[in-house]
Amino acid sequence: MSLEAILSRLDSDQNDARNRLLEFLAIPSISTDPDYKAEVRRAAEWLRDALIDLGADAELRVTPGHPMVTGRTNGEGRPLLFYGHYDVQPVDPLELWHRDPFDPAIEDDVIRGRGAADDKGQLMTFIEALRAWKSERGTLPNITFLFEGEEESGSPSLVPFLKEHKSELTRDLALICDTGLYAKDRPGIVTQLRGLLGEEIVVRGASKDLHSGSFGGIAQNPIRVLARIVASLHDATGRVTIPGFYEGVPELTDELRAQWDALTFDGPGFLSGVGLSAPAGESDRTALEHIWSRPTAEVNGIRGGYAGKGFKTVLPAEAAAKISFRLVGNQDPLAIRDSFRAMVREMIPEDCTVEFHDHGAGPASHMDTSDPAFEAARQALGQEWPHEAAYIGAGGSIPVAGYFQSILGMDSMLIGFGRDNDQIHSPNEKYDLKSFHLGARSWARILDAIS
Amino acid sequence: MSLEAILSRLDSDQNDARNRLLEFLAIPSISTDPDYKAEVRRAAEWLRDALIDLGADAELRVTPGHPMVTGRTNGEGRPLLFYGHYDVQPVDPLELWHRDPFDPAIEDDVIRGRGAADDKGQLMTFIEALRAWKSERGTLPNITFLFEGEEESGSPSLVPFLKEHKSELTRDLALICDTGLYAKDRPGIVTQLRGLLGEEIVVRGASKDLHSGSFGGIAQNPIRVLARIVASLHDATGRVTIPGFYEGVPELTDELRAQWDALTFDGPGFLSGVGLSAPAGESDRTALEHIWSRPTAEVNGIRGGYAGKGFKTVLPAEAAAKISFRLVGNQDPLAIRDSFRAMVREMIPEDCTVEFHDHGAGPASHMDTSDPAFEAARQALGQEWPHEAAYIGAGGSIPVAGYFQSILGMDSMLIGFGRDNDQIHSPNEKYDLKSFHLGARSWARILDAIS
Repeated sequence: MSLEAILSRLDSDQNDARNRLLEFLAIPSISTDPDYKAEVRRAAEWLRDALIDLGADAELRVTPGHPMVTGRTNGEGRPLLFYGHYDVQPVDPLELWHRDPFDPAIEDDVIRGRGAADDKGQLMTFIEALRAWKSERGTLPNITFLFEGEEESGSPSLVPFLKEHKSELTRDLALICDTGLYAKDRPGIVTQLRGLLGEEIVVRGASKDLHSGSFGGIAQNPIRVLARIVASLHDATGRVTIPGFYEGVPELTDELRAQWDALTFDGPGFLSGVGLSAPAGESDRTALEHIWSRPTAEVNGIRGGYAGKGFKTVLPAEAAAKISFRLVGNQDPLAIRDSFRAMVREMIPEDCTVEFHDHGAGPASHMDTSDPAFEAARQALGQEWPHEAAYIGAGGSIPVAGYFQSILGMDSMLIGFGRDNDQIHSPNEKYDLKSFHLGARSWARILDAIS
Repeated sequence: MSLEAILSRLDSDQNDARNRLLEFLAIPSISTDPDYKAEVRRAAEWLRDALIDLGADAELRVTPGHPMVTGRTNGEGRPLLFYGHYDVQPVDPLELWHRDPFDPAIEDDVIRGRGAADDKGQLMTFIEALRAWKSERGTLPNITFLFEGEEESGSPSLVPFLKEHKSELTRDLALICDTGLYAKDRPGIVTQLRGLLGEEIVVRGASKDLHSGSFGGIAQNPIRVLARIVASLHDATGRVTIPGFYEGVPELTDELRAQWDALTFDGPGFLSGVGLSAPAGESDRTALEHIWSRPTAEVNGIRGGYAGKGFKTVLPAEAAAKISFRLVGNQDPLAIRDSFRAMVREMIPEDCTVEFHDHGAGPASHMDTSDPAFEAARQALGQEWPHEAAYIGAGGSIPVAGYFQSILGMDSMLIGFGRDNDQIHSPNEKYDLKSFHLGARSWARILDAIS
């Protein structure tokens, strides 16, 4: 049957497809919180069953953490690996959601719920494309599936799993659906990705919480120590101060700078959409450089003492911060981790100790776009969307693409249909119905073009 | 009947006295947390009933916050005001308690539970002394009672209440039981108290939580702004950097320095008791100066972003810190508040805002020890305890003593029986049975001497 028949099938099947996604979104698969372990597994089982329902072989694979879901079609054509993740971010602050994050629903032209865009809705675009393909053609393309349940918690099991199952997972090319449209009607294929290093530091002082009236001033206060550390991570111009941090950070090539300039990115609009007006980072960089090609150090969380209602004159025994680094070019995550930890240790005064917790370390990656699949996919996307697709960078890190390169020797095509206003990692996450539907149609076109 | 009869009565009544205190401690009167409002009221009612049971008039008095408990005996003698507070500190981190903080019990030679030492156990020493007095003499001294339910949450209703009921509450002298022994067997009468200023700052950036992969670097991060503010509050020598902060801070007089030197305070032991070894404050001050006569700025709590289990790459919309200042001499709390807020506002970058919450402001105070009651009380204490009583300072703030001076024109004798290891404001708070019993005996002696 023709590609047109598959696209028509996707059009007529939209309602059922939405209901399948709603069912998947209702499972609270928060991987970072051990309390949700059983729910994460339930989401894995749901996804396995969806693959089996397609006619693929599929199973749960044990890891030290949450299971992998793997599968394989018995189809013909170029062997492809499809990757997505079935786990989701935590939902706090819960009070800012206007509905239960795990009671998802269609609201006007969006699907609302945790995971709608990141990544359940996106991975389902691919599965729905295959479902329609199977209905019309009776067979499937040659796809191996890898779905992870720890993407939102640093992917601790991913590297060992890739190493252990290298031959099973190494295909011609990977397809990853965990990125966004470049703009409302213009899709993008991400060809360069920042890496991510996650660190947690816990500073400890006295053996117990103290009364700040009795011990204030004379006893070390871990919050003050931690604040000094956090405040020292950047200089007055916004540059990161960790020794060696900028080693391996490339300047943009003239060619790439010209391509990005042509995208006429709306930096002010990007900020004003979230209530901001002034770029806060390195003062001599454009907005797209900040997001796609410059490294960052950000504090994602801090805690210490009594921060609840009212006031408590406590001098706490410990304080902690979670800090993440976005890495570019050839920055070495492990060297930066070492340098960061050494810098922090230098700032720990007598009577305090520091403990580090590792939350993952993945390098940046760049794809070789000379593989004809890239241009074929770009053309296919241009047939589905009002504007032609662009080769772009990505701000968020997708370390798996780097691991596919370094462990499996395989490049990835990162194609996704999320939008900047999807509120991923925030309250009220949503996925546009248009993204969901045109996303599935896009995959049908791409698979038809490259498979 | 003689004083000896009262003391004997206290000896024979110890078991019942402990049970009364246990009952009082079981009421979770956490004033700072609105969820405990009804429990705070229940504690007030318990205390009112205890006064009525003594034979005093007593009632709950409405305030905009938690009620005051007031009462009056119809006794003769020098008119005295007794003050205590029936509210307690929050109990988190709850997991560090080895028993339910509101299921108090006798453990070996201590009474364990939240509020045991601060301040329920202490105020009960006075009530138990009066109970024995009444049993033996049939009458009571001339006492007016004032018990507050907001001492642990900044006493917002106290000043208006004192102003409104000035004539009812102004007596010759106030007695306050909310301080500690100077050392294990040596009581103290506190004659100088630090003041307290409580401030909460909330820094806000974007209109919502952001993904740090998309917005890191280019968007303001309120945690980073807050860390810079906290880190800037002290210079490298430990001095507070707020402009004008040290105005009104007196140097010790030679006389007081000599008195304090004679106390041979064990600074190293004070720190080693909580797992520390090196004084952290101003490098040129003694330990007792730090605690009794130097002002401080401490961070009591900080929060921002995701600080739970695992990791979340969020760039938060807000971050907040609670900061308290201990004040001495003639430091003006309101002037310091203004200067602090101005300094913070200066550090707020474009695209961020700051909000301040007031958590109370009380000046330091000094008592006039030429009132003969001071020396009479000191002698009486010396008869009860192995070592004679000392005139001392106090690290923790008891703003009420300052208000009694400024509003009622009345000095206070601050006499208490707590110990440094009572874990007040910390998990596993306790009060020594010896403190409880000898405390009650001490009050009987003092009242006999000064009433």
